This record gives sequence, C-alpha cells and structure tokens, in this order.
Amino acid sequence: MVEFKKLSECIEKKQEIFIDRLRRAVEIPSVSAEAGHRNDVFRMIDWTQKELEKLGATCEQIQNGKQEMPDGTILDLPPVLFATLGQDKSKKTLCIYGHLDVQPAALCDGWDSDPFKLTERDGKLYGRGSTDDKGPVMAWINAIETLQEMKVDIPINIKFVLEGMEESGSVGLDDILIKHKDSFLSDVEFTCISDSYWLGKSKPCLAYGLRGLCYYCVEISVCQQDLHSGVFGGTVHEGMADLCWLMSQLIDAEGTIKIDGIHEQVAPVTAEEIELYKKIDFDIDDYRNDLKAHKLVTDDKVKILMNRWRFPSLSIHGIEGAFAGPGAKTVIPAKVVGKFSLRIVPDMTPKAVDKCVIDYLNKLWAQRKSPNQFKVYPTKGSKPWLADYKNPHYQAGAKAIKTVFGTEPDYICEGGSIPVTLTFQELTQKNVMLLPIGACDDMAHSQNEKINITNYMDGTKVLAVYLMELGNCSS
Amino acid sequence: MVEFKKLSECIEKKQEIFIDRLRRAVEIPSVSAEAGHRNDVFRMIDWTQKELEKLGATCEQIQNGKQEMPDGTILDLPPVLFATLGQDKSKKTLCIYGHLDVQPAALCDGWDSDPFKLTERDGKLYGRGSTDDKGPVMAWINAIETLQEMKVDIPINIKFVLEGMEESGSVGLDDILIKHKDSFLSDVEFTCISDSYWLGKSKPCLAYGLRGLCYYCVEISVCQQDLHSGVFGGTVHEGMADLCWLMSQLIDAEGTIKIDGIHEQVAPVTAEEIELYKKIDFDIDDYRNDLKAHKLVTDDKVKILMNRWRFPSLSIHGIEGAFAGPGAKTVIPAKVVGKFSLRIVPDMTPKAVDKCVIDYLNKLWAQRKSPNQFKVYPTKGSKPWLADYKNPHYQAGAKAIKTVFGTEPDYICEGGSIPVTLTFQELTQKNVMLLPIGACDDMAHSQNEKINITNYMDGTKVLAVYLMELGNCSS
Ligand SMILES: [Zn+2]
Ligand SMILES: [Zn+2]
Ligand SMILES: [Zn+2]
Ligand SMILES: [Zn+2]
Repeated sequence: MVEFKKLSECIEKKQEIFIDRLRRAVEIPSVSAEAGHRNDVFRMIDWTQKELEKLGATCEQIQNGKQEMPDGTILDLPPVLFATLGQDKSKKTLCIYGHLDVQPAALCDGWDSDPFKLTERDGKLYGRGSTDDKGPVMAWINAIETLQEMKVDIPINIKFVLEGMEESGSVGLDDILIKHKDSFLSDVEFTCISDSYWLGKSKPCLAYGLRGLCYYCVEISVCQQDLHSGVFGGTVHEGMADLCWLMSQLIDAEGTIKIDGIHEQVAPVTAEEIELYKKIDFDIDDYRNDLKAHKLVTDDKVKILMNRWRFPSLSIHGIEGAFAGPGAKTVIPAKVVGKFSLRIVPDMTPKAVDKCVIDYLNKLWAQRKSPNQFKVYPTKGSKPWLADYKNPHYQAGAKAIKTVFGTEPDYICEGGSIPVTLTFQELTQKNVMLLPIGACDDMAHSQNEKINITNYMDGTKVLAVYLMELGNCSS
Repeated sequence: MVEFKKLSECIEKKQEIFIDRLRRAVEIPSVSAEAGHRNDVFRMIDWTQKELEKLGATCEQIQNGKQEMPDGTILDLPPVLFATLGQDKSKKTLCIYGHLDVQPAALCDGWDSDPFKLTERDGKLYGRGSTDDKGPVMAWINAIETLQEMKVDIPINIKFVLEGMEESGSVGLDDILIKHKDSFLSDVEFTCISDSYWLGKSKPCLAYGLRGLCYYCVEISVCQQDLHSGVFGGTVHEGMADLCWLMSQLIDAEGTIKIDGIHEQVAPVTAEEIELYKKIDFDIDDYRNDLKAHKLVTDDKVKILMNRWRFPSLSIHGIEGAFAGPGAKTVIPAKVVGKFSLRIVPDMTPKAVDKCVIDYLNKLWAQRKSPNQFKVYPTKGSKPWLADYKNPHYQAGAKAIKTVFGTEPDYICEGGSIPVTLTFQELTQKNVMLLPIGACDDMAHSQNEKINITNYMDGTKVLAVYLMELGNCSS
C-alpha cells in the first residue's frame, strides 16, 4: 500500500489545483429550486462529467423527465450522472453519492462576498456549495486524481451517483435508482456519502444515523388578487391572520410539538443510548457561541444532542405570497402559503406523520370557522435512517481518519436528512456510511457558506486513504 | 366659459397623445421602496418637470436630504417638485398634489404583462402607476395642455406639489411643506388631490374623508445567521414560532382587533351618519365578485362601508427575513420582522395607537417567555382626515362631474391614507378635496394595476372643467 507520507505530500502539492477545481464548480450557480438557474444545474452536471472522464470514468446521464413548478410551468429535470471507474471483477465496488446542485443564495441575503465566486478569507473558502456538496464531490475527484498520478493501483471499482436535485427533494432520483437496482447498483458492496459535517470544528467523525424530513405547505386563499389594505381592509377575512394562527398552534412556547400523535411515534430512548451520547465530545457553550444564539432550548449536552438526532423537531420556514421585502407595503395578500417541516426519527414514518399533521390542521381549520379556502399538503417525506457502525466498512473509514488525523472518529448521527442514504441501503442491502469532511460551522444553506482549506485538503487525504483501505475490507 | 362640447372633442382628438404620455411615465420604474430603483424616481421627477415646463410652468426641485435604509445604506431622497403656472394676483390659486413614485412590481408576482410597459387590453391600460398615481398626474397635464391649445384663459393660478416618496411614507414631504407654508403655499385657496378611486365602476364621486395609517414592525432575533433546520432544528427557540404567535394575537377569527384600548378611541357612530351611508350607491355583491373573495366579513352594505371608512382595520402584510420563495427551503431564519398596520379613523391618533400597540405586544412578549430578542416599533403614522363637503370647492368639483357625466357624484370617504391631505388642510387652512378619476377595480398596489381608457379620458375632461369652474368659486 502507498505510504501515507508520500500521498499526503502529493495532495498538498496540488492544493492550488484542487482549490481551482472547487472555484470552477462554485462559479456555476446550480440552484435547483429556481427555474432561472435550472440550466446551470445541467451545466454543472456536464462540467462534472468532463472532470470524471479525465479520470478515465465511463459516464452516462440518466434522463429524469419533467417537473411541474408551483406556478404551472414545466421544467426539464436534470439527469442523474452515473460514472464507472474500474470494472475489475476481482475487486469490490464502492458507490459514491454526491449532489451538484446548491441552495439559493444572493449577495443581498447578507453574504460578505458573491456567493458564486469562491472567495478565500482567513484560510476559509466562501461560496455557495463550497461545503454542500461541491467541496466533498471535488475532494473525491482530487483523491482519485492524486492516486492515479502516483500510479497507485486503486484496490476497488468506483461508481458515482451524482444528482442535481438534492436541494429540491431529489425529484426522480429514487425511481432511477430503483430501475438500476439490478444493473448499475447490482455489484455495489459499500456506499459512501460525504454530504454532512463534523459535530465540532476539530474532531472528525463518522455518521450512522439521519433524521427524516416531512415538509408541508398550508395554503390560505382569500380572493384572486392582492388587495390594498387602505381600500379593502376591514371587509375581507385576511389570510395572513388565519395562517399566523394556524402556524402558532404547531409548537408551544417551549418548542414542544403540539400536533396530536407525533410523540407517540418516537422509539423510546434506552439507558444504553444515554450512555453512548454522554461519551460524545461536544461542547455546548462553543455550540451556542458559534450560533451567536441568545439561548438554547436546554443547557444539557445529552438533551441537546438528542434534540438534534434522536427526537423530532418542527421548524416554520416562512410564507410564500405575503410581503417579504424591506420597507412598508400595505398589501393584503390574496393567497399565502405557510411552509413548515418536521425532522423525524425512528420509528416515525412520513405516512404516519402526514396523517397526524393533516388531521391536526384540518381540526384547527374547522375550529377557526374562516370563510377562506384552506389546503394542507406534504411536499416531501423521507424516512429516518440508521446503519450498523460496527460494520468493517466503518472500520475502513475510521482507519483512514486515524491515518490522517491520528485520532479515532466520534460516531454520531445527523439532524439533517439525506433521503437517498436509506434508498442505497435498501436497494443494495449493504452498508452505507456517511463520511463528512466539512466542519460544524460551515453554514450550509446559510449566508457565508464556507469550507476550511484544511478540511478540504485533509478531507481529500481521508477519502484517498479510505479508497485504499477498502481493498482490505470484507463488508 | 368654454363650451363643453368643444372641450370634449379637443380632448378626445388627443387620446393617442395622452396615452403615449402615460406610457412614457409608466416606463420609468420609479419604485421608491427599492434602492435599485431610486435613480428612476429622480428620472421620473426630471421627466415630469420637462412636461410641466412645456406648459409654461416655472419649476423648482426642493431638495429633500438623505434616507437611511433598513440595511444601513444611505440613499438620496428624491426632491419634491414645485411648479407654478400663472401668477395673476386677481385670480385664486389652486394647489394640485400628486405622486410620481409607484409600488414595487415584478412580472413574476403574477402580472399578465410587464408592469413597466403600458399595455392596452380590452380598453384598459395596464401598468404599475397607471392609476396610482401617474395616470391622474398625466390627466392634469392633459387638461391644462388642452385648455392652452384651445386658447382658453384658465381662471385660476395653478401650483403643483409632486413628490417621489409617497409609496414609502412621503419621507420629508411634510417638513418641506411646513417650510413653505408662508411662501409657496401662502396664497393657496384650494387643494385638489386625484390619488384615489371611485367607489364603484361607473359612478363618479368626491371624497371628504380618509383613514390614517399606523404601520408596525415586530422583530424577533434568534441568532446571527440563518440555520439549517436539519442540523440545528430542536436546539434553538425559533423566531418564526414566536412571531406567528404574536401576530395571531392581533385580531380574532372574526377580524376584530384584539389590541387593548383601540376600540375606545373610535368616535361613536351617529344615527345621522348611518342615514348618510344608507344613501350611497354601492352593490355589495358586485364588490365581492370583483374581489373574487370567497366571502366578506358581513353582507350588510352600511357595515361594509363603515368597515372601510368609519372603523379601524388591521392587516398583517408579511414577514421579512423568512423564506418567501417557491419550493421547500429548510431554513431556520435568524431574524424575522413581522409587518402589520392599522387603518385609523377619528378620534384615533397615531400617538395613542402606537402606545396601545406597543404596550399590547410588550405584554404578549412577557407572557411568551422566549429567550429571543424582541423589538416592536412604528415605521409610520398618519392621522385620519375629514373635510367639509358642503364647501363651494366641492360644488365646483360636483359641477365638473355633472357636466361630464350628467350625474351628481356620491360623497364618500376613503379607506386608504394620503397623509399629505391633512397636511395641506392644516397648513393652508383651506378646503381640500379628493377628486378621483380611476375606478374601484383598478387594483392599485396589486398585480395588473390598470386604468380604463374611458376613465383616463373622462377624468381629463372633469379636471379641465373643474379648473374652469374654480373661476366662479368663492372658497
Ligand atoms: Zn447536501
Ligand atoms: Zn444541502
Ligand atoms: Zn397613490
Ligand atoms: Zn399608492
């Protein structure tokens, strides 16, 4: 096996090339949620295909049909990129998943630099997608490129599944994977996903669990057009009043979910679990200070971690259709759509949660006795995921981390959902591992998303060593 | 006095010229609320000055200082345009107020055509500002231009006060008017404002009352940056939950304002008033059908009209800082600003209303016991206005309407606020009249704002006849 010192030096020598690769990726504003950027998602997929082809991969774009947007326009869905590197029957096959689309971002949201220009400040690379998930995808490419340049025989076959709709519910991906269960996916022994973050800023980790997500829209429609509150105020039942009231009934002042039947679905916490959580290296004061939050819901480490991973949470994200700009517009919105979501945990299922949420909101609406039109519907649902972290696959990941960082990883869960994780586990019936390279303060989905140069470079090293370690791994 | 038939023909011959004038006005996107359009407000004022100078008016731009935007940037305020046409000491002086700025508008808000291209469909001219307030301002110019071309001696001196910040609270206007009380405004005998709408679609009216406006922001701040709900959901007190709850406590399910001390401030309704309201030509079914509202708060004509004019109303306009786009963003907003306003009526005052609102929200916030930061503040306040509609000035307006339409106007109030109306009345100590030319379904502030060509043309006629009638008017 290649000597780590030599590998590490080769990777470090290529730092500028690797940063430049990420720069070019970030410059393509592949925002999947915005129709105006859909073409950029296609561009991003084409660009990545070329990068993979330079490594010698055979690529195929799996077509993904059409999508109807909320306003009725029809958009082409970006294809899913399948890539195959190595077809040696004597080797096992690793499947790497990543996504090439990003969350919306605009300078005026509060970014300190153009979100679509990778900007280096204080050893950090700022830009939309820098850590979620273009950085990790580029790190895989960097790792393979380096091993190839070192003329190292990579002891496994590698397959990539790269999509362009992750930030918009991975539309179509599951169907495509299901269709390729017995072809592209048939020989997959391990799946590895680098699309999450360390728990802190210095200690690497492996993640074996993810919360699921149930996302809802509540529509209140008053009339056909927005109205001037001076002319019409006092004569119509206003939709915002109904919506604020409905959304005020979702959680109480302590943050407890008020929807009937939710808590009953949560698997009881065992004493063993509590012990496991107690061991995790996590500083609650650092966490609060990083957020610059006035106060957390509790000061207890285990409770905070369980609130993130082990219990459901409900967030109200915003309202579509109401006035959202600066200044003082005196509008009565004609139709408002409230958006909220629940993060769900074992043994909750989207189906059961949907029923509780819809029943509860229908019950509230009946109480409200408003003449407006009301509609509540789920827009996506994904199950929670749990893997066996004692599997040899996780040991390969842990060895790679030990080699690069000299420390054992923490074994953690993730609060966010990557629905495809469960899909891979179910379709391949093999172990799936989350191997994050970014730090907890990378601010994915937020203003000033970044990845530390050290995380990007050490992450490339970990992924390279992990690819080599898999050669010795009996899954 | 000029024969009406001849005047009417001259105006009709100029229809294309008049529509073209409005087209050029609408094409300047003078949105005062958006920093990116501030320069267009200046352009609109310069353009209008040139139009007035072509009529022979002497113009002066009164500088209006600077404005700090919510994000801390400093913008130049557009000047107020003063114009004087005629300085004959033997004639009385009319002051005409109008505004040259418009509400924000974007095609994607649901417009059927570009809001900044005047578009004719079915005898209607669609475009932002077509009826609020560029159409009426152009109609004044059209009227004067026609009378001049007919070589008619206009029996009064005319002064214009045209501003560019009306849709953003008329910042600076009152100060400028107060400073010019004893100079520019000293000889004003009448003030006329065409910046409102008919009660219906066919019957012209004069308005003698306006509700005031008190606009509020409620800020809830959680932490420094927006957070990913998957990673952080369950650990912070979310601001949207607090804000939705606060805003749900402003009005009840019937639309009754829940803020303590508001209803006590409303002047009692007299039996005489109820009789006056009963006489007004108003079809409640037409009204509801035009709005395409599912149901109104009441089916009683007098109650609906009093809800619009005689009682306060509260509207929740929206939330700044939360997710407002299409799709499903899983964000926990770091800071959210709820926006709502009250329309106020005699004997309410902004000062007394501010106190009630702030006390009430502080009381609610204390109940909530949230660790988040909370702030409530008024962003504008204007008093209600009432004029004497038996004044000879109103009779001149009524005669003009009778001449053009063959019918007496309805005497109505307006639900919206034009704060400067009261300022003119207080500074000149003379009668102020609202003389609308647009129809009730013009959809000011909304998508697909329009003015009917007939309203624009007949309005030009009414304004021309009114200018002539003022010669016989002893205020
Ligand atoms: Zn991601
Ligand atoms: Zn993401
Ligand atoms: Zn106006
Ligand atoms: Zn307006």
